[in-house]
Amino acid sequence: MPEKAGSLLAADEDSIAGARRRVMARCDELARVSSTPGSIERVYLSAEHARVNRIVAGWMSEIGMTTWQDAAGNQVGRIGPANGDQDRPALLLGSHLDTVPNAGRYDGIVGVLVALEVVRLLRARPVHAAVSLPFALEVVAFSDEEGTRFGRALLGSSAVAGQWEPSWWQLTDADGVTLRDAFVTFGLDPERVREAARSPDELIGYLEAHIEQGPELDQRGEALAVVSSIASARRFQLAVEGESRHAGGTPYDIRRDALLGASEAALAVERICRAEHHIIGTVGQLEAFPGAVNVVPGEARLSLDLRGEFDGERDRVWTKIASEIDAIMGRRGLHWRAQEVHSARAVYCDPLLQHAVREGIMSTRAPGADNPAVVFSPAGHDGMAIGAITGIGMLFIRNPDGISHHPDEAVAAGDVGHAIQALAESVLQIAADRP
Amino acid sequence: MPEKAGSLLAADEDSIAGARRRVMARCDELARVSSTPGSIERVYLSAEHARVNRIVAGWMSEIGMTTWQDAAGNQVGRIGPANGDQDRPALLLGSHLDTVPNAGRYDGIVGVLVALEVVRLLRARPVHAAVSLPFALEVVAFSDEEGTRFGRALLGSSAVAGQWEPSWWQLTDADGVTLRDAFVTFGLDPERVREAARSPDELIGYLEAHIEQGPELDQRGEALAVVSSIASARRFQLAVEGESRHAGGTPYDIRRDALLGASEAALAVERICRAEHHIIGTVGQLEAFPGAVNVVPGEARLSLDLRGEFDGERDRVWTKIASEIDAIMGRRGLHWRAQEVHSARAVYCDPLLQHAVREGIMSTRAPGADNPAVVFSPAGHDGMAIGAITGIGMLFIRNPDGISHHPDEAVAAGDVGHAIQALAESVLQIAADRP
Repeated sequence: MPEKAGSLLAADEDSIAGARRRVMARCDELARVSSTPGSIERVYLSAEHARVNRIVAGWMSEIGMTTWQDAAGNQVGRIGPANGDQDRPALLLGSHLDTVPNAGRYDGIVGVLVALEVVRLLRARPVHAAVSLPFALEVVAFSDEEGTRFGRALLGSSAVAGQWEPSWWQLTDADGVTLRDAFVTFGLDPERVREAARSPDELIGYLEAHIEQGPELDQRGEALAVVSSIASARRFQLAVEGESRHAGGTPYDIRRDALLGASEAALAVERICRAEHHIIGTVGQLEAFPGAVNVVPGEARLSLDLRGEFDGERDRVWTKIASEIDAIMGRRGLHWRAQEVHSARAVYCDPLLQHAVREGIMSTRAPGADNPAVVFSPAGHDGMAIGAITGIGMLFIRNPDGISHHPDEAVAAGDVGHAIQALAESVLQIAADRP
Repeated sequence: MPEKAGSLLAADEDSIAGARRRVMARCDELARVSSTPGSIERVYLSAEHARVNRIVAGWMSEIGMTTWQDAAGNQVGRIGPANGDQDRPALLLGSHLDTVPNAGRYDGIVGVLVALEVVRLLRARPVHAAVSLPFALEVVAFSDEEGTRFGRALLGSSAVAGQWEPSWWQLTDADGVTLRDAFVTFGLDPERVREAARSPDELIGYLEAHIEQGPELDQRGEALAVVSSIASARRFQLAVEGESRHAGGTPYDIRRDALLGASEAALAVERICRAEHHIIGTVGQLEAFPGAVNVVPGEARLSLDLRGEFDGERDRVWTKIASEIDAIMGRRGLHWRAQEVHSARAVYCDPLLQHAVREGIMSTRAPGADNPAVVFSPAGHDGMAIGAITGIGMLFIRNPDGISHHPDEAVAAGDVGHAIQALAESVLQIAADRP
């Protein structure tokens, strides 16, 4: 692919084509590392987590990176500037390798693999005479972004951001295993988790490529977008308590059916959020207990995932939802409580990094590259945590039909090629902008 | 307790007091046989099932009964007439030993133990000169009434009624174990299940004492009631199919959220049944898949338990519910299907056995015994299956506050004493009425 005017990257069409083929093949390879036969599921501190770390470490070594697994199970690779002090601050590139249950093969994974190709391109090819990298490059494959296992998202990137909280050790998975015990079983030392933390003065910034996980780019017919900010998010586990009674012998008048209260609550979340702009609430889990066909449920548990573009709006909507749930439970003689399991303020991408991503996209021949879309991300990303220690920039890759967290999740190889070129160009832009 | 006029039973206050103490203590003892520490759960073909059968067989032997576990895992004890042909037809007394999850200790169990005390009284005490039993007595402890494990109720009594259906072998429990495999693991031979079936000409009838599982007797201040009929019941497993998508990136307009559809369906069941007389519908199970906090549920499964006094009314309400669910799913772009897992016609108690139960209750000094209530049972019972091969009679015991299928399920020892006396007297009435 001939360079467009202003491109700093000396990458030819063959090298981009090779890179995108490798990314697609490696996404397929990692998809086979799953705890669930026939579908993809890879959670924090599992055997599958260890296995993908080893595979990715191998790919990092192949392109000359020094590799290590950090104290929170994140896989990291580093390569210093070609000529210069190997201890220079690093530009982080990355994404995550963990998945939701019954996942697709690209969410997170493609960002890690694109980052590796960016390193390969910048290392292997002669770059424009005017530019050499005055910083190290690191690729980080975060170990837990989804929060599938312990109900708390961004565990991996929070450790890197030095924001690990001691209370998390008591989080348990579905089998009752604590996060602390899972750490030890995985071979990590809970006492040393702080060693995963990076200091702001070691870092230049953080760049991530990710599939959009929404339909906007697909609907616009464009391949890549600049991300402006990442959603403000809160997650709750709600418990509803009523009374278990016999399904036959208990008249409706004396029932206190926790499942019906929970059902009304789930529908109220939808009704309230639908009426708002850029607020989205999802009940992804709901279960009734004791869960017998002939017992009125005495207890129900449900999750609530609430996202918005702005923190204040998000909190106002949560207050509205909570007051509506109060009214529902009051009418039904039920009690309820909410435990907040995740809270993240909206994170805004760094203006200089946004600019670099925009320039990167504009250097490609991707559809829409002449004037890249700037979008807000309602989905959370590792950058939400990393934003606490360094500036972040993100690039979205078109996600056909917006299907994500699903086996049908897809990305076009051509778009992956554009993303590799755009991200490599962004890195060079950042280098060119530095004194 | 001195006999009232017309009582045929020569039981003194001491023997009834001993009997009721034994029943209460044995309910406590069996409550300790549970698969779940701290609560009661005992399902079909489990280790706990085998253990309670052995314990109850021991108690049967103590009072001179011949015992066996039948080909479907029901525990049976038999004692022939004192003077006469040991092969005479038998009057069956019984109930079930299996439980729902997080169960109480009396539902079913108390009926089996009351039956044993009835046998003990009739065997140990000289009966009124005018009466001797012209039939054998059998106590049957059914192995599966609740249907907890395989979602299909009355497996134990259906086998005895000769109504075992080959399609049931493919039913699976929550771990995917088929009923066939569970049979083999338990030590039973699936090929021989028909041997559990009893022929009508071997039987005089079936009598069962059971807690009411509803608040009516408690509200009336009465201890015992005659049961007129057992509810017509159908059970369904409903599956709702939508599309799993990322919780952040998927706008409401393109969501097809199976959990919200299921929630609306559960609320529709309540709304429709509440408007009917003597119809009750319960959603006891509801689960969303994949069940991740940040994924729009693409699938939901829920159970529906529907009961009514009359079959036609029950079916008319099901049609109404199904048409409402159709409308809900249509609006939401969801698909759904219902699998019927249980269907039982209303079963009416035999008039002669009802009369005997009424006479039995009237022989006691229980509150309300001078004019016993006659009630319809919305809860299902083993008699629903056994009604296919012999006449059935049932006696309800007051259930404080109507709490059942719950650890707080209770019964007063005094009421148990009355029930023992009433049921023993009912047996003598049946004997006296025979040519």
